[in-house]
Amino acid sequence: MTPSSDPADHAPVDPAASAAARQAPDSALEQLSAIRGTIDNIDAALIHILAERFKATQRVGRLKAENDLPPSDPEREKAQIQRLRHLAEAAHLDPEFAEKFLTFIISEVIRHHEAISEDRRRGTDA
Amino acid sequence: MTPSSDPADHAPVDPAASAAARQAPDSALEQLSAIRGTIDNIDAALIHILAERFKATQRVGRLKAENDLPPSDPEREKAQIQRLRHLAEAAHLDPEFAEKFLTFIISEVIRHHEAISEDRRRGTDA
Repeated sequence: MTPSSDPADHAPVDPAASAAARQAPDSALEQLSAIRGTIDNIDAALIHILAERFKATQRVGRLKAENDLPPSDPEREKAQIQRLRHLAEAAHLDPEFAEKFLTFIISEVIRHHEAISEDRRRGTDA
Repeated sequence: MTPSSDPADHAPVDPAASAAARQAPDSALEQLSAIRGTIDNIDAALIHILAERFKATQRVGRLKAENDLPPSDPEREKAQIQRLRHLAEAAHLDPEFAEKFLTFIISEVIRHHEAISEDRRRGTDA
């Protein structure tokens, strides 16, 4: 097997170089390399969609700060989690993972909202 | 403002019901509701793309278990993180967040790979 020359791969290491991989047949390493190419494409899509999501939540953060709305909204979060759990089930994704994922994203968003509020308060005090 | 009737929203609570929101003008609450609709659409896309990513990593997990390859691959992970940080910068997403996000996903994937390996070991011993 020759190392992948696909620039989308960006993996500098030939998987055949590790001690364990020397036991694996070339066909398995070729399959591994092909699936990794798919994963890399999916990850690029995820990053770009997440970038759009943060643009939207930044707009929410500014709106909330301008109107003295609290940075977090537990009722909305509860509804989002329930909805994503249902969507995950339909897509054969572990609903527990979907919930952990949304909680992870929301905690980052709230951190941003608090920072926006804090910046505005400092601006008002100055 | 009337509560959103958009079924994509799935938020059971009228944002105008909270004490803080009573201070906010209707136009702000309408804008908030519109942006939340966008966020809900983005989240549905994320869940479906993540479901495809886990299908791909499950194939990787089976391949690794069948060929006695280790569940984690630190060199590959390092390359993935560097690549996603660059993609995040280009998309105006915080690279720190992109790295935390990938680490979060990979830790879940490795947990799955270890479970597949463990199942196979138990199957061999039985």
